[in-house]
Amino acid sequence: MKFASHFIPRKGEPKVEYSTFGRHVAVDAWGVDYELLNNAEFLQAQLVEAAETCGATVLSVQSKQFEPQGATVLVLLSESHLSIHTYPEKGFAALDCYTCGETVDPQLAIDYLLSVLKPRTVHAKKLIRGIGELRVEEPEMKPFALV
Amino acid sequence: MKFASHFIPRKGEPKVEYSTFGRHVAVDAWGVDYELLNNAEFLQAQLVEAAETCGATVLSVQSKQFEPQGATVLVLLSESHLSIHTYPEKGFAALDCYTCGETVDPQLAIDYLLSVLKPRTVHAKKLIRGIGELRVEEPEMKPFALV
Repeated sequence: MKFASHFIPRKGEPKVEYSTFGRHVAVDAWGVDYELLNNAEFLQAQLVEAAETCGATVLSVQSKQFEPQGATVLVLLSESHLSIHTYPEKGFAALDCYTCGETVDPQLAIDYLLSVLKPRTVHAKKLIRGIGELRVEEPEMKPFALV
Repeated sequence: MKFASHFIPRKGEPKVEYSTFGRHVAVDAWGVDYELLNNAEFLQAQLVEAAETCGATVLSVQSKQFEPQGATVLVLLSESHLSIHTYPEKGFAALDCYTCGETVDPQLAIDYLLSVLKPRTVHAKKLIRGIGELRVEEPEMKPFALV
Protein backbone atom coordinates (compact mmCIF):
# COMPACT_ATOMS: atom_id res chain seq x y z
CA MET A 1 0.00 0.00 0.00
CA LYS A 2 2.68 2.46 -1.02
CA PHE A 3 1.30 5.81 -2.09
CA ALA A 4 0.96 5.43 -5.83
CA SER A 5 0.42 7.78 -8.72
CA HIS A 6 -0.20 6.68 -12.29
CA PHE A 7 1.25 8.13 -15.43
CA ILE A 8 1.63 7.14 -19.06
CA PRO A 9 5.28 6.60 -19.94
CA ARG A 10 6.63 7.20 -23.45
CA LYS A 11 6.27 3.59 -24.62
CA GLY A 12 2.51 3.68 -24.05
CA GLU A 13 2.37 1.16 -21.16
CA PRO A 14 0.64 2.36 -17.99
CA LYS A 15 3.17 2.26 -15.14
CA VAL A 16 2.99 2.78 -11.39
CA GLU A 17 5.19 5.37 -9.67
CA TYR A 18 5.47 5.89 -5.93
CA SER A 19 6.10 9.08 -4.00
CA THR A 20 9.53 9.13 -2.35
CA PHE A 21 8.31 11.77 0.12
CA GLY A 22 8.52 10.39 3.64
CA ARG A 23 8.38 11.39 7.29
CA HIS A 24 10.70 9.78 9.84
CA VAL A 25 10.07 10.42 13.53
CA ALA A 26 12.94 9.42 15.87
CA VAL A 27 12.15 9.42 19.59
CA ASP A 28 14.28 8.80 22.68
CA ALA A 29 11.98 8.00 25.60
CA TRP A 30 13.23 7.98 29.22
CA GLY A 31 11.70 6.96 32.51
CA VAL A 32 9.74 3.96 31.22
CA ASP A 33 8.92 0.99 33.48
CA TYR A 34 11.43 -1.85 33.38
CA GLU A 35 8.76 -4.51 32.87
CA LEU A 36 7.24 -2.80 29.83
CA LEU A 37 10.64 -2.48 28.17
CA ASN A 38 11.86 -5.97 28.95
CA ASN A 39 9.11 -7.84 27.12
CA ALA A 40 9.73 -8.29 23.39
CA GLU A 41 6.44 -10.14 22.92
CA PHE A 42 4.43 -7.33 24.51
CA LEU A 43 6.34 -4.67 22.56
CA GLN A 44 5.79 -6.53 19.30
CA ALA A 45 2.03 -6.54 19.87
CA GLN A 46 2.14 -2.81 20.69
CA LEU A 47 4.17 -1.93 17.59
CA VAL A 48 1.76 -3.84 15.35
CA GLU A 49 -1.15 -2.01 17.02
CA ALA A 50 0.68 1.32 16.57
CA ALA A 51 1.22 0.63 12.87
CA GLU A 52 -2.45 -0.18 12.39
CA THR A 53 -3.43 2.94 14.36
CA CYS A 54 -1.67 5.16 11.82
CA GLY A 55 -3.14 3.25 8.88
CA ALA A 56 0.09 1.51 7.86
CA THR A 57 0.18 -2.06 6.55
CA VAL A 58 2.30 -4.56 8.50
CA LEU A 59 4.07 -7.05 6.22
CA SER A 60 6.35 -8.83 8.71
CA VAL A 61 7.94 -8.49 12.13
CA GLN A 62 11.28 -9.45 13.72
CA SER A 63 11.89 -9.30 17.42
CA LYS A 64 14.65 -10.21 19.84
CA GLN A 65 14.63 -10.57 23.60
CA PHE A 66 18.16 -9.87 24.85
CA GLU A 67 19.77 -11.44 27.93
CA PRO A 68 20.06 -10.37 30.68
CA GLN A 69 17.62 -7.65 29.55
CA GLY A 70 16.60 -5.52 26.57
CA ALA A 71 14.50 -5.95 23.48
CA THR A 72 14.38 -4.98 19.81
CA VAL A 73 11.34 -5.12 17.51
CA LEU A 74 11.49 -4.22 13.80
CA VAL A 75 8.24 -4.00 11.84
CA LEU A 76 8.40 -4.05 8.05
CA LEU A 77 5.60 -1.86 6.68
CA SER A 78 4.37 -1.39 3.13
CA GLU A 79 5.18 2.26 3.85
CA SER A 80 8.72 1.68 5.34
CA HIS A 81 9.39 0.66 8.99
CA LEU A 82 8.67 1.00 12.69
CA SER A 83 11.22 0.02 15.33
CA ILE A 84 12.01 -0.02 19.04
CA HIS A 85 15.23 -0.74 20.93
CA THR A 86 15.04 -0.85 24.72
CA TYR A 87 17.41 -0.58 27.69
CA PRO A 88 15.13 -1.55 30.58
CA GLU A 89 17.89 -1.02 33.17
CA LYS A 90 18.04 2.64 32.07
CA GLY A 91 14.28 3.07 31.51
CA PHE A 92 15.23 3.97 27.92
CA ALA A 93 13.61 3.21 24.57
CA ALA A 94 14.62 4.44 21.10
CA LEU A 95 11.66 4.52 18.71
CA ASP A 96 11.63 5.16 14.96
CA CYS A 97 8.68 5.37 12.62
CA TYR A 98 9.43 6.12 8.98
CA THR A 99 6.55 6.15 6.49
CA CYS A 100 6.61 7.08 2.83
CA GLY A 101 3.71 8.86 1.15
CA GLU A 102 1.32 11.55 2.32
CA THR A 103 -1.42 9.30 3.66
CA VAL A 104 0.12 7.57 6.67
CA ASP A 105 1.34 9.87 9.46
CA PRO A 106 4.10 8.22 11.54
CA GLN A 107 3.40 10.62 14.41
CA LEU A 108 0.16 8.73 15.12
CA ALA A 109 2.08 5.48 15.65
CA ILE A 110 4.54 7.29 17.94
CA ASP A 111 1.68 8.94 19.90
CA TYR A 112 0.11 5.52 20.42
CA LEU A 113 3.37 3.97 21.65
CA LEU A 114 4.07 6.86 24.04
CA SER A 115 0.55 6.52 25.46
CA VAL A 116 1.41 2.88 26.26
CA LEU A 117 4.98 3.41 27.52
CA LYS A 118 4.23 6.62 29.47
CA PRO A 119 7.80 7.95 29.59
CA ARG A 120 8.76 10.76 31.98
CA THR A 121 10.85 12.53 29.32
CA VAL A 122 10.85 12.46 25.53
CA HIS A 123 13.36 13.87 23.04
CA ALA A 124 12.46 13.70 19.36
CA LYS A 125 13.30 14.85 15.86
CA LYS A 126 11.38 14.48 12.63
CA LEU A 127 13.24 14.05 9.35
CA ILE A 128 11.50 14.92 6.09
CA ARG A 129 13.00 12.60 3.48
CA GLY A 130 12.80 11.82 -0.21
CA ILE A 131 12.63 15.44 -1.39
CA GLY A 132 16.29 16.53 -1.60
CA GLU A 133 18.11 17.79 1.52
CA LEU A 134 16.86 16.02 4.64
CA ARG A 135 14.82 18.56 6.58
CA VAL A 136 14.91 18.38 10.38
CA GLU A 137 11.79 19.41 12.30
CA GLU A 138 10.76 19.42 15.95
CA PRO A 139 7.77 17.10 16.19
CA GLU A 140 4.94 17.99 18.55
CA MET A 141 4.56 15.47 21.33
CA LYS A 142 1.08 15.03 22.79
CA PRO A 143 1.04 15.92 26.49
CA PHE A 144 -1.14 12.88 27.38
CA ALA A 145 1.85 10.69 26.70
CA LEU A 146 3.87 12.23 29.51
CA VAL A 147 3.18 11.41 33.16
CA MET B 1 27.28 -7.65 21.49
CA LYS B 2 25.81 -4.54 23.02
CA PHE B 3 28.43 -2.28 24.60
CA ALA B 4 28.44 -3.43 28.20
CA SER B 5 29.81 -2.03 31.42
CA HIS B 6 29.74 -3.86 34.73
CA PHE B 7 28.82 -2.48 38.12
CA ILE B 8 27.92 -3.86 41.51
CA PRO B 9 24.32 -3.07 42.39
CA ARG B 10 23.16 -2.60 45.96
CA LYS B 11 22.06 -6.20 46.48
CA GLY B 12 25.57 -7.45 45.82
CA GLU B 13 24.81 -9.28 42.55
CA PRO B 14 26.97 -8.32 39.58
CA LYS B 15 24.73 -6.88 36.88
CA VAL B 16 25.28 -5.86 33.27
CA GLU B 17 24.44 -2.36 32.09
CA TYR B 18 24.56 -1.16 28.50
CA SER B 19 25.39 2.25 27.10
CA THR B 20 22.36 3.99 25.60
CA PHE B 21 24.66 6.23 23.51
CA GLY B 22 24.00 5.63 19.83
CA ARG B 23 24.70 7.03 16.39
CA HIS B 24 22.01 6.97 13.71
CA VAL B 25 22.97 7.85 10.14
CA ALA B 26 20.04 8.53 7.77
CA VAL B 27 20.88 8.78 4.07
CA ASP B 28 18.79 9.58 1.00
CA ALA B 29 20.65 8.37 -2.10
CA TRP B 30 19.63 9.45 -5.62
CA GLY B 31 20.69 8.40 -9.08
CA VAL B 32 21.17 4.71 -8.35
CA ASP B 33 20.76 2.06 -11.07
CA TYR B 34 17.27 0.55 -11.33
CA GLU B 35 18.57 -3.03 -11.33
CA LEU B 36 20.56 -2.61 -8.12
CA LEU B 37 17.55 -1.16 -6.31
CA ASN B 38 15.00 -3.66 -7.58
CA ASN B 39 16.66 -6.77 -6.16
CA ALA B 40 15.77 -7.49 -2.53
CA GLU B 41 17.98 -10.59 -2.47
CA PHE B 42 21.04 -8.66 -3.67
CA LEU B 43 20.34 -5.80 -1.26
CA GLN B 44 19.94 -8.20 1.65
CA ALA B 45 23.38 -9.70 0.95
CA GLN B 46 24.87 -6.19 0.73
CA LEU B 47 23.30 -5.04 4.00
CA VAL B 48 24.61 -8.10 5.82
CA GLU B 49 28.07 -7.42 4.35
CA ALA B 50 27.79 -3.75 5.39
CA ALA B 51 26.88 -4.72 8.96
CA GLU B 52 29.86 -7.04 9.17
CA THR B 53 32.11 -4.37 7.68
CA CYS B 54 31.36 -2.03 10.60
CA GLY B 55 31.79 -4.82 13.15
CA ALA B 56 28.09 -5.19 13.99
CA THR B 57 26.47 -8.55 14.75
CA VAL B 58 23.56 -9.59 12.50
CA LEU B 59 20.83 -11.45 14.42
CA SER B 60 18.10 -11.69 11.76
CA VAL B 61 16.93 -10.18 8.48
CA GLN B 62 13.54 -9.40 6.89
CA SER B 63 13.18 -8.43 3.27
CA LYS B 64 10.39 -7.70 0.84
CA GLN B 65 10.38 -7.44 -2.93
CA PHE B 66 7.52 -5.13 -3.93
CA GLU B 67 5.52 -5.37 -7.16
CA PRO B 68 5.77 -3.87 -9.70
CA GLN B 69 9.09 -2.64 -8.25
CA GLY B 70 10.82 -1.63 -5.01
CA ALA B 71 12.44 -3.39 -2.09
CA THR B 72 12.83 -3.14 1.67
CA VAL B 73 15.44 -4.90 3.82
CA LEU B 74 15.56 -4.61 7.63
CA VAL B 75 18.53 -6.09 9.49
CA LEU B 76 18.23 -6.65 13.23
CA LEU B 77 21.64 -6.08 14.82
CA SER B 78 22.82 -6.74 18.37
CA GLU B 79 23.64 -3.02 18.24
CA SER B 80 20.24 -1.81 16.80
CA HIS B 81 19.35 -1.87 13.08
CA LEU B 82 20.28 -1.30 9.45
CA SER B 83 17.63 -0.69 6.77
CA ILE B 84 17.03 0.19 3.13
CA HIS B 85 13.87 1.19 1.27
CA THR B 86 14.13 1.59 -2.50
CA TYR B 87 12.18 3.30 -5.31
CA PRO B 88 13.95 1.94 -8.39
CA GLU B 89 11.75 3.98 -10.76
CA LYS B 90 13.12 7.13 -9.10
CA GLY B 91 16.68 5.86 -8.61
CA PHE B 92 16.09 6.49 -4.90
CA ALA B 93 17.11 4.61 -1.77
CA ALA B 94 16.59 5.59 1.88
CA LEU B 95 19.24 4.05 4.16
CA ASP B 96 19.42 4.02 7.96
CA CYS B 97 22.08 2.61 10.19
CA TYR B 98 21.59 3.01 13.93
CA THR B 99 24.12 1.46 16.30
CA CYS B 100 24.34 1.73 20.06
CA GLY B 101 27.65 1.85 21.89
CA GLU B 102 30.99 3.43 21.08
CA THR B 103 32.58 0.49 19.32
CA VAL B 104 30.56 0.05 16.13
CA ASP B 105 30.52 3.05 13.76
CA PRO B 106 27.39 3.07 11.56
CA GLN B 107 29.14 5.35 9.07
CA LEU B 108 31.32 2.43 7.97
CA ALA B 109 28.22 0.41 7.01
CA ILE B 110 26.83 3.42 5.11
CA ASP B 111 30.17 4.00 3.33
CA TYR B 112 30.20 0.37 2.23
CA LEU B 113 26.63 0.54 0.88
CA LEU B 114 27.29 3.78 -1.00
CA SER B 115 30.38 2.23 -2.58
CA VAL B 116 28.10 -0.54 -3.90
CA LEU B 117 25.13 1.63 -4.94
CA LYS B 118 27.23 4.48 -6.39
CA PRO B 119 24.56 7.20 -6.17
CA ARG B 120 24.95 10.47 -8.07
CA THR B 121 23.70 12.52 -5.09
CA VAL B 122 23.52 11.87 -1.36
CA HIS B 123 21.76 13.80 1.41
CA ALA B 124 22.38 12.71 4.98
CA LYS B 125 21.98 13.54 8.64
CA LYS B 126 23.46 11.89 11.69
CA LEU B 127 21.48 11.77 14.93
CA ILE B 128 23.32 11.30 18.23
CA ARG B 129 20.89 9.46 20.49
CA GLY B 130 20.59 8.09 24.00
CA ILE B 131 22.24 11.07 25.74
CA GLY B 132 19.35 13.55 26.24
CA GLU B 133 18.35 15.92 23.42
CA LEU B 134 18.86 14.29 20.01
CA ARG B 135 21.84 16.02 18.43
CA VAL B 136 21.81 16.50 14.65
CA GLU B 137 25.14 16.41 12.81
CA GLU B 138 26.20 16.57 9.18
CA PRO B 139 27.95 13.28 8.47
CA GLU B 140 30.97 13.25 6.20
CA MET B 141 30.36 11.27 3.04
CA LYS B 142 33.39 9.65 1.42
CA PRO B 143 33.93 11.00 -2.10
CA PHE B 144 34.68 7.54 -3.54
CA ALA B 145 31.01 6.68 -3.14
CA LEU B 146 29.92 9.39 -5.56
CA VAL B 147 30.35 8.99 -9.32
